[in-house]
Amino acid sequence: MKFSQTFIPTLREAPADAVIVSHRLMFRAGMIRKFANGLFAYLPLGLRSFRKLEQIIREEMAAINSLELKPTVVVPGELWKESGRWDAMGDAMLRAKNRLGADLVISPTAEEAFTSLVRDELSSYRQLPLSLYQINSKYRDEIRPRYGVMRGREFVMKDAYSYHTGEASLDQTYQDMGRAYRRIFKRCGLTVIPVQADSGAMGGSGSEEFMVESEIGDNTLLLCKDCDYAANVEKAGCKPDFTAPPSIEAARAASSSTPAAEKIDTPEVKTIGELCAFLKTSARTFIKTLIYRAVNVELDLSAAPGCASLERRRPAPDAPLVYPEAFFAVVIRGDLDVNEAKLAAALKAGEVALAADGDVQRLSGAPVGFAGPLGLTGLPIIVDETVTAMNDAVTGALEKDLHYRHAAYGRDFEGWMLGDFRTVKAGDRCPRCGGELYEKKGNELGHIFKLGYKYTRSMNVSYLDENGKTQVPLMGSYGIGLDRTLASVIEEHHDEDGIIWPVSVAPYHAVIIPIKYAGAVKEAVDALAKELEGLGVEALIDDRDERPGVKFKDADLTGIPFRLVAADKNLAAGKVEIKRRGAGEPRLVGINGAAEELAAMVRAELAALDDS
Amino acid sequence: MKFSQTFIPTLREAPADAVIVSHRLMFRAGMIRKFANGLFAYLPLGLRSFRKLEQIIREEMAAINSLELKPTVVVPGELWKESGRWDAMGDAMLRAKNRLGADLVISPTAEEAFTSLVRDELSSYRQLPLSLYQINSKYRDEIRPRYGVMRGREFVMKDAYSYHTGEASLDQTYQDMGRAYRRIFKRCGLTVIPVQADSGAMGGSGSEEFMVESEIGDNTLLLCKDCDYAANVEKAGCKPDFTAPPSIEAARAASSSTPAAEKIDTPEVKTIGELCAFLKTSARTFIKTLIYRAVNVELDLSAAPGCASLERRRPAPDAPLVYPEAFFAVVIRGDLDVNEAKLAAALKAGEVALAADGDVQRLSGAPVGFAGPLGLTGLPIIVDETVTAMNDAVTGALEKDLHYRHAAYGRDFEGWMLGDFRTVKAGDRCPRCGGELYEKKGNELGHIFKLGYKYTRSMNVSYLDENGKTQVPLMGSYGIGLDRTLASVIEEHHDEDGIIWPVSVAPYHAVIIPIKYAGAVKEAVDALAKELEGLGVEALIDDRDERPGVKFKDADLTGIPFRLVAADKNLAAGKVEIKRRGAGEPRLVGINGAAEELAAMVRAELAALDDS
Repeated sequence: MKFSQTFIPTLREAPADAVIVSHRLMFRAGMIRKFANGLFAYLPLGLRSFRKLEQIIREEMAAINSLELKPTVVVPGELWKESGRWDAMGDAMLRAKNRLGADLVISPTAEEAFTSLVRDELSSYRQLPLSLYQINSKYRDEIRPRYGVMRGREFVMKDAYSYHTGEASLDQTYQDMGRAYRRIFKRCGLTVIPVQADSGAMGGSGSEEFMVESEIGDNTLLLCKDCDYAANVEKAGCKPDFTAPPSIEAARAASSSTPAAEKIDTPEVKTIGELCAFLKTSARTFIKTLIYRAVNVELDLSAAPGCASLERRRPAPDAPLVYPEAFFAVVIRGDLDVNEAKLAAALKAGEVALAADGDVQRLSGAPVGFAGPLGLTGLPIIVDETVTAMNDAVTGALEKDLHYRHAAYGRDFEGWMLGDFRTVKAGDRCPRCGGELYEKKGNELGHIFKLGYKYTRSMNVSYLDENGKTQVPLMGSYGIGLDRTLASVIEEHHDEDGIIWPVSVAPYHAVIIPIKYAGAVKEAVDALAKELEGLGVEALIDDRDERPGVKFKDADLTGIPFRLVAADKNLAAGKVEIKRRGAGEPRLVGINGAAEELAAMVRAELAALDDS
Repeated sequence: MKFSQTFIPTLREAPADAVIVSHRLMFRAGMIRKFANGLFAYLPLGLRSFRKLEQIIREEMAAINSLELKPTVVVPGELWKESGRWDAMGDAMLRAKNRLGADLVISPTAEEAFTSLVRDELSSYRQLPLSLYQINSKYRDEIRPRYGVMRGREFVMKDAYSYHTGEASLDQTYQDMGRAYRRIFKRCGLTVIPVQADSGAMGGSGSEEFMVESEIGDNTLLLCKDCDYAANVEKAGCKPDFTAPPSIEAARAASSSTPAAEKIDTPEVKTIGELCAFLKTSARTFIKTLIYRAVNVELDLSAAPGCASLERRRPAPDAPLVYPEAFFAVVIRGDLDVNEAKLAAALKAGEVALAADGDVQRLSGAPVGFAGPLGLTGLPIIVDETVTAMNDAVTGALEKDLHYRHAAYGRDFEGWMLGDFRTVKAGDRCPRCGGELYEKKGNELGHIFKLGYKYTRSMNVSYLDENGKTQVPLMGSYGIGLDRTLASVIEEHHDEDGIIWPVSVAPYHAVIIPIKYAGAVKEAVDALAKELEGLGVEALIDDRDERPGVKFKDADLTGIPFRLVAADKNLAAGKVEIKRRGAGEPRLVGINGAAEELAAMVRAELAALDDS
């Protein structure tokens, strides 16, 4: 391909709204242009890289027997009503009405569409497992689209869905997908961090996110300095920094020498900080009590304190029963924060949030700041495991300006539920090896998870098992964002002059720069390009009538891995100059062997990216 | 690929709404499934053929230097307001509002999107010509989607747009596209009829449609029995079946011996048929006069009778001036019909339709049925060329129950505009060779046309020419519907048992049927498949545990071109059976040479489809 025959409008400057490197470079290199906020067009150079990424994904999906389908982008709203997500998706989902007034959805994801197809075709266990995917346009009405294609409104996702007769089969596909995702990212030259992720809200059990480190990442990751533990903060655990008694009886025994709990005056003291100062002690000796409001709770609360008469209903005919609203008191050691994602997962709640002041006052009988577990009735108490080690603590006394001291878990109060609800942070210890944890910001490129029965039940999917009995299949779902994967490659591979493509997703393998595209140079360059084509090397000839400096700058900017320079003098000596973008100095090679040598370098780099 | 590892849910029956062959067979062969009216998913088998069609199109676009882009499917409504089509597209365009209330369009076509991209990048004549395309999802809210993917709501279109400094350059790309389209359809094994098409409403001058014959086609084509003339009825011309005087003076001279026009009583006679019976003569001796209402007329009417005070305005700041409403009298020989597409094109009108009875009465001064050109003032008279030969005709007298006889063109009336406005029909004579024309119904698969300045002017695209002067580029637009192209291949290539794919767009080249996939047969079949793969032949092994009859039926249904049958007995004799779907009887070939022989047949068929 000749530069003059394609359309690569390179620019010296990027628009002001391009604040991250990949956005700036994709714009400047003529890879993308903007229609509107969050809506980008790929120009020929960008599309070439995009297609290579698509191809890598297709190869890896084929290798694990996932089958490609092409559903529509626009799907009936009816499907989303069946699953219950018509309401749950909110404003992020773009909707339209057709001329007959029927609801349509511009797909933000496709659990419903695939599940409806499978529902119509599935009859026997012999058809399972089934793993299906698409690579197709999606639309999510992001509130604040930014960072170019990293967080756009329309984007392309590879989304796969699998259906199974049992856990072992689901786990097999889940593991296969995980391996395929690792290979996909590796082949793109990306360093990803696979992290354990929360999946409570999805109703599943098993979820892994593939993150890249990014200053603008919207996820907080906790990583271990000593081992490969990595988790999303929503799910991260840590090694206990307390010694919990093994049982409630042991907890009671541990407080045998603690004086009886007594109320103390704490006038005008409301926060843990104020209390620490007032009592001249540390936050680790306080029991913090927070009242949470949870919505759409699936957990059975019929035996929980104060919940017997709570409203419970089915949002849709085949959906599980939920409590539209329920309140909980969470107690945790005073120096820690409650992790709302863990709490929501434990409660199987749609959402949890701190209760409003009025609710706190109603439920605790005191102003905000004086809640505590002693004597608290009327709502379930959820105990973070750190509290089980506390046998002489300070906590709110359910009265204004009063706290208890000498409060002891087991002796003075118990919980309705016990678990890990703390927010792990940098400095905590790795749950696996005890090493120090540190934080990173991450961007999610891929996500695999076990959905369980969530969609197959609500959408009435079934099959007959070996015994002719009707069963509901298990389901998994697996996504990769192509646009942000490509942008992330650039974030990881660039320098101050431009992109430095890994060969696998480079728009071209090589750019040939004739110092002047005429006469003997033209002849030599054309012959070289032809030879390269025969060897499977994609070369772009920069045939423009521009100064060499302009061509060199554009070659650096567009980041094409190998640069060949054909100048009069060198050619006369039978040589061309060859250079790997981003590595070392140019060197002269014989024109006769140049194509073969370059092809070997391309193959070697592809092989290095693909070894596994 | 093994049948058991893919997902090809074949069926003996098609749903009741599948009334055409391609819809029935695509459904039964497990190529597509339906989400809702007009919304279909391609399953793996269908997608394989679809991707081959995409690839053929990409190759042919590359061959004429058209560059692929990937704009978004969802685009800002703002672009459509700029071009003026936000209003013009009506209900066929699916619209949505995002969470901020901004208008969005689910692209039905992309003149606006491409033109806005080019507008932002174009500065110099040196960047032109530019030919760009996409292969992407489109949505049109068809009132009555039907015939499967032949007339769906969401579909995939290859749409290309070109920009030029002048007519010669536009014509070059237009001709290139026409050749590329012919090659694309030929490579798919399709017999297309390239026809001249109306392009008046698009503001262009030059348009060709690529039709396939189809009982359910929504276009009427006129074809010559003797030469290759073919035209859409909207544009079709014919050899004159009258001898028109060369000038208005000659027309007057021709009527020198005609008695003066005189009124005759024609009580209760309104239609041409009644008049023929009443006067015992033929419709060819009548001048039919029809009053038309035209909207958004671009033609300058300032000198036309009765039009001096008509309202004229610009629908958008940079749009051309139009008359929102204007009336015209069209006179034509009594045995002919007025072609409204030709009329609209001549008037540069957005739309023309017969005027309401009230308007006819107001403008002609008589009830419907008595309009005529003699004495008709107050609106422009448009004369079909057939009328210029009429020097002794009957026509309405602008009074109830009265007609004129002995009316003569030139002597008794003249027109404001003269042209060809007749609807050509079967039996008329070819304008090229005089042969008899016949009619066919056709479905449009592709359309190329010269748009002229329509979008580049309304959207303010400009560049500087060689002299530094600002110029507006000319534009062309070129589309192919992929889904209906694939369906049309099946319409042309099938028999009562199923599809008969041309090799070029077949999902697989060959299907291998082991009578039982076990033991020595399995070994032989696996080895054969591997050998075929090495030779570039895509083979599907039907490894299912089904009766041979089921496998044969599915092989016929899915239409895979070559069938290899491996049976115990034949294998023992070193033979396999080979058969071309839809042609001849199976024959035995040596297993050792079978792969090579098959590969040669595949190559030969591909070459035959691709010779040009």
